[in-house]
Amino acid sequence: MLRVMSIAKLIYECGPNWHHATGTPISDPALWYQSPKGTTHIVVSELELSLMQKTARVDVVHAFSTVRQALGGQPLSIASMVQYLVGLEKTPPKMIMVPADFSANLFQYLTSAGLPVQVDASPLFFPARAYKTADEIKKLKAAQKLNESAFQLAFGILATAKIRKTDATLMWQGAVLTSEILKGEMNAHLARNGVSEFHHGPIVACGPHGAMPHHRGSGPLKAHQFIVMDCFPRHANGYWGDLTRTVLKGKPTEWHHSVYNAVLTSQKLALSMLKPGVDGSTIHKAVVDSLIKSGFPTGADSKGNPYGMFHGTGHGVGLELHDPGPRTISAAQCMLEPGMVTSVEPGLYYADKKTTGGIGGCRIEDLVTITEKGYTNLTTLSKTDWIIK
Amino acid sequence: MLRVMSIAKLIYECGPNWHHATGTPISDPALWYQSPKGTTHIVVSELELSLMQKTARVDVVHAFSTVRQALGGQPLSIASMVQYLVGLEKTPPKMIMVPADFSANLFQYLTSAGLPVQVDASPLFFPARAYKTADEIKKLKAAQKLNESAFQLAFGILATAKIRKTDATLMWQGAVLTSEILKGEMNAHLARNGVSEFHHGPIVACGPHGAMPHHRGSGPLKAHQFIVMDCFPRHANGYWGDLTRTVLKGKPTEWHHSVYNAVLTSQKLALSMLKPGVDGSTIHKAVVDSLIKSGFPTGADSKGNPYGMFHGTGHGVGLELHDPGPRTISAAQCMLEPGMVTSVEPGLYYADKKTTGGIGGCRIEDLVTITEKGYTNLTTLSKTDWIIK
Repeated sequence: MLRVMSIAKLIYECGPNWHHATGTPISDPALWYQSPKGTTHIVVSELELSLMQKTARVDVVHAFSTVRQALGGQPLSIASMVQYLVGLEKTPPKMIMVPADFSANLFQYLTSAGLPVQVDASPLFFPARAYKTADEIKKLKAAQKLNESAFQLAFGILATAKIRKTDATLMWQGAVLTSEILKGEMNAHLARNGVSEFHHGPIVACGPHGAMPHHRGSGPLKAHQFIVMDCFPRHANGYWGDLTRTVLKGKPTEWHHSVYNAVLTSQKLALSMLKPGVDGSTIHKAVVDSLIKSGFPTGADSKGNPYGMFHGTGHGVGLELHDPGPRTISAAQCMLEPGMVTSVEPGLYYADKKTTGGIGGCRIEDLVTITEKGYTNLTTLSKTDWIIK
Repeated sequence: MLRVMSIAKLIYECGPNWHHATGTPISDPALWYQSPKGTTHIVVSELELSLMQKTARVDVVHAFSTVRQALGGQPLSIASMVQYLVGLEKTPPKMIMVPADFSANLFQYLTSAGLPVQVDASPLFFPARAYKTADEIKKLKAAQKLNESAFQLAFGILATAKIRKTDATLMWQGAVLTSEILKGEMNAHLARNGVSEFHHGPIVACGPHGAMPHHRGSGPLKAHQFIVMDCFPRHANGYWGDLTRTVLKGKPTEWHHSVYNAVLTSQKLALSMLKPGVDGSTIHKAVVDSLIKSGFPTGADSKGNPYGMFHGTGHGVGLELHDPGPRTISAAQCMLEPGMVTSVEPGLYYADKKTTGGIGGCRIEDLVTITEKGYTNLTTLSKTDWIIK
């Protein structure tokens, strides 16, 4: 005989799991509970009540005051609220699962109140978060579209910029054009159009800065060097865009051409392999092999500094910029499945001219979703117009 | 004989506690450990190493690779890294304290590895976070100054706006001026100048929207009504600004005048009471009493909807917009002490004309720091020029 475990689920937060579970954001931590029968409840303050009644995808919305009344008017605690919710069904749960990042303090508190809480150690508390719905894809696409418009603005600025003859510094509106100014203009455009968070971005990393994938870029922008532009804004709809283009203002050398073509070739290869049932680690290996074949190996110099392609080829994107759970396209195994959204972002990084013939970084990143038959690219921005005259 | 407890401290995060402990932000969760002797360590990936060596205020910076080598080359885990750090001093700690929001999963993992971890249930894991240093005050002031410049921009737009005769809608650059447009212009200005986060703000709430303190504001802005403007951007330096002004474009009624004056009077009273040793709850009570004296009581209508002044008068601000720990100026007891930074933000909210003579919200908020003798206002923006012609 099959036995169905009597398991409930509980979260207390205002982050991505809340947004996923209820379909709507909330500004302060609140309680969400799913009974063993599958009935979903939230308990919120009076200030959030009417908004949540209108927007939250749950079966029952409780206000503090109604729970307090039901409990005989005592001051509420998280434990008493959970006990109230547990008591709404005849059969109490044998187990109440909470996510890995649940507060250790709250966990101990609920345990000592006699509640059978258990920590779910898996990276995704809601496995469904790995598979985006049509509505979520629409929101991610909107975020990426807005993101693209910031790149177009930046390309326009770079096109208008003049090259100072003495040192190849870019000049714009009569002053030196810096990474900071270009980032500010992109963010101003994004903010004006509803973006709510930048996660310390974008990256506008010129020449040697671009050779360090974690460098945000700073100081004057120069002609005749790669400029890595990686922008990852969060749309007001809650979802993130993620997009990288590498451009060069002025005249590329042969080295620039061969690096750019190698990265673009490897990205095209990765895209062509995307479909359900393919292991992301196979694609990542193919990317690295393709770069080697183009003459760009990955390794470390005598001081241990890495060069070449030394990060994963892609990560999940959704309600978090780096969605937890499946690693999608990296050294770790991950079977691609319809509805997954992943970045595809091979790159090459060379900080030392001796080893590699040039200095700088080049990365090309699109955001795509896996479909039943292959994939859909959520990105439309050109990858061939990388030389800005 | 006095016994000194052998207590260590541990965090694993990339949030405000990390920023406080090391003086510098980091983008991915990392390990910080303070031995019972007080020696501070961090363990970071190679990608963060050089930056942390330059910027982190800690005694020792460890790289994954050096810890891995010291542990004989096995793959690292958080538990093995903590065991390594614990082993660096002869006397192991009797207790390793972790913060209340420590991951419940990681807590169980460390416990089962035999580490004596204990959850610190207090809201501030680092009590020093409640008392801002001179450098922190400088950063908060910079955040608030930038914040003020966004208000000045918005006031300029409201001053240029025309009032459409048919329905008192504000028109700007030939189109209807909405909350969304004004918020976008403020955020664009802030983003251009280095703000990294908006926390879904600002609030630009006109008329009835302003009567709901959690309403962000939406749709066309109208003349002859209060517009509550509450902006709380995070400066690139990591600290938050927080500032509210209420303005009115066009002609205020007598009701508007009396509400505005009541709120301003109560804020002046609150400010005059700020000094070390005063209980914030006394100030909050004085604010509510002052508003009653001005003819504006707090209560709830027959449907249970609150009106008047139904939130705390002030909250801590620092590395978080709502700093945890002391509630500063609210119904809860909190002794003010030098170095605390608090908002001072009385308001009045009336959604029903019958009860109160008018509809709308009015809030005035400054950000201040408590000093040895009294307080310093970190805000300079006018509170008397609230009528925009």
